[in-house]
Amino acid sequence: MSHSAGAVPRITGRTRLFAVLGDPVRQVRAPELLNPVFAQLGLDAVLVPVHASVLHLGEVVRGLQRAGNVDGLLVTVPHKAAARAFADVQSAAVRLAGSTNALRRGADGRWYAENFDGAGFVAGLVAAGHPPAGQRVTLVGAGGAGGAIAAALVLAGVARLDVVDVDPARVRMLLDRLSDHAPGVVREGATPSGDTADLVVNATPLGLREDDPLPFDPARLAPGTLVADIIMSPPETRLLHTAAAHGLATHRGAPMLTEQLRMYREFFDLHPTEATE
Amino acid sequence: MSHSAGAVPRITGRTRLFAVLGDPVRQVRAPELLNPVFAQLGLDAVLVPVHASVLHLGEVVRGLQRAGNVDGLLVTVPHKAAARAFADVQSAAVRLAGSTNALRRGADGRWYAENFDGAGFVAGLVAAGHPPAGQRVTLVGAGGAGGAIAAALVLAGVARLDVVDVDPARVRMLLDRLSDHAPGVVREGATPSGDTADLVVNATPLGLREDDPLPFDPARLAPGTLVADIIMSPPETRLLHTAAAHGLATHRGAPMLTEQLRMYREFFDLHPTEATE
Repeated sequence: MSHSAGAVPRITGRTRLFAVLGDPVRQVRAPELLNPVFAQLGLDAVLVPVHASVLHLGEVVRGLQRAGNVDGLLVTVPHKAAARAFADVQSAAVRLAGSTNALRRGADGRWYAENFDGAGFVAGLVAAGHPPAGQRVTLVGAGGAGGAIAAALVLAGVARLDVVDVDPARVRMLLDRLSDHAPGVVREGATPSGDTADLVVNATPLGLREDDPLPFDPARLAPGTLVADIIMSPPETRLLHTAAAHGLATHRGAPMLTEQLRMYREFFDLHPTEATE
Repeated sequence: MSHSAGAVPRITGRTRLFAVLGDPVRQVRAPELLNPVFAQLGLDAVLVPVHASVLHLGEVVRGLQRAGNVDGLLVTVPHKAAARAFADVQSAAVRLAGSTNALRRGADGRWYAENFDGAGFVAGLVAAGHPPAGQRVTLVGAGGAGGAIAAALVLAGVARLDVVDVDPARVRMLLDRLSDHAPGVVREGATPSGDTADLVVNATPLGLREDDPLPFDPARLAPGTLVADIIMSPPETRLLHTAAAHGLATHRGAPMLTEQLRMYREFFDLHPTEATE
């Protein structure tokens, strides 16, 4: 079975469906990333974007869950917190992060929610030789991505997690969720400087645009601090460029996505099949 | 822009969605027929199968209608009658047939229902040089397809329509729907024979299988009678073969689908676009 570049296999009445939900949805990359994976595995499946407003999320999700050939849903902004309501079973990461980005129909008919935003980030760190277990970490940005990463870092066994955000209410909400699970590990932090952390993570959107200010000044960090950014485009943000110029080790955003794709394959049980034609 | 045979264009976050609903849905041909049309027209759109049970049809359809990038729905067995409930505006063909096989979101946000099963059949007759206006027609089979064809024949202005079915209740329901619109034109008929019709149509499933009995005996029809079959596979049913062997003109099932595809293009407003890549 061969496919032209960028094309997906022929869709038939037997094709299984996956959907990615967002509002807006036009910016999602998941169809372009996962449909080639389906094709490579020889799976008769397709991932389509579904534009669901906040007002109609419930109707859209329930409709998809009622469709017999829909096997899974990916969820993006602004639905990651609300989508938990459509799961019968939430993973520890979902409960800790307070959000989900992937739901699948189980063989038992129940819907299982996971969150791979944080797990993908942690797996990327591990793959790069920077396992966060036992480390002191400062996380800058307690929004959706930051919350998922905080949960994954706690589940990965960091020694301490300082959370910094311009909005103190977001930090408090995150601490409320995480403190029961890991008492004494997570606390509100200050702008990172000196030798207060082994790893400093930018989980704010600062760096997406050329003229964004730096989320923190890496020149003020102690030598040996690892600076990580979750921004994937540009591949090397000004933050990482500046950190490297000061002799600090850096970790880019791309591995987070690579690892998430691998995790989606496992979660959705996507295995190579015999080609049927 | 080029596409490999049988493939559909790359799906992105901007792709518009169409769905075909059925239970089962694995037998539907619409994705294989319409996705290449989208590709040929350069449209960033995809048609996917959606398996909806009778019990959950409402939830599935409403969910799809709430999704901002779903532009249209095709409907197949057993949902063609029930799907009328999800339209804001029903065409004359839908009201007469009591069923719909296509719904689209209008520019005004309302959902418009059409039924092209019958219109496709009539357009196929016209294209083959057999316009049914003013003709005496006997229709064998008053099920879903038969009802749609009866409505289209009445709308096309047949002089008389005799409806035959093994189930008298189905005939009565069909007559009830059509008699207001065309008083005196439609009536319950007997097994066709002699010179009682200019056109005799098989709208039963008899002929799909090699060992099916004939729905009626074409050898008993008067010379000059046109015998039509809606069955597409095999292309020439035993009914048509027998009719031709007796010197009768015949009309196959295929043109009905060809014309329906053309009608879908118009209904869903599918026009060629400039290639964007």
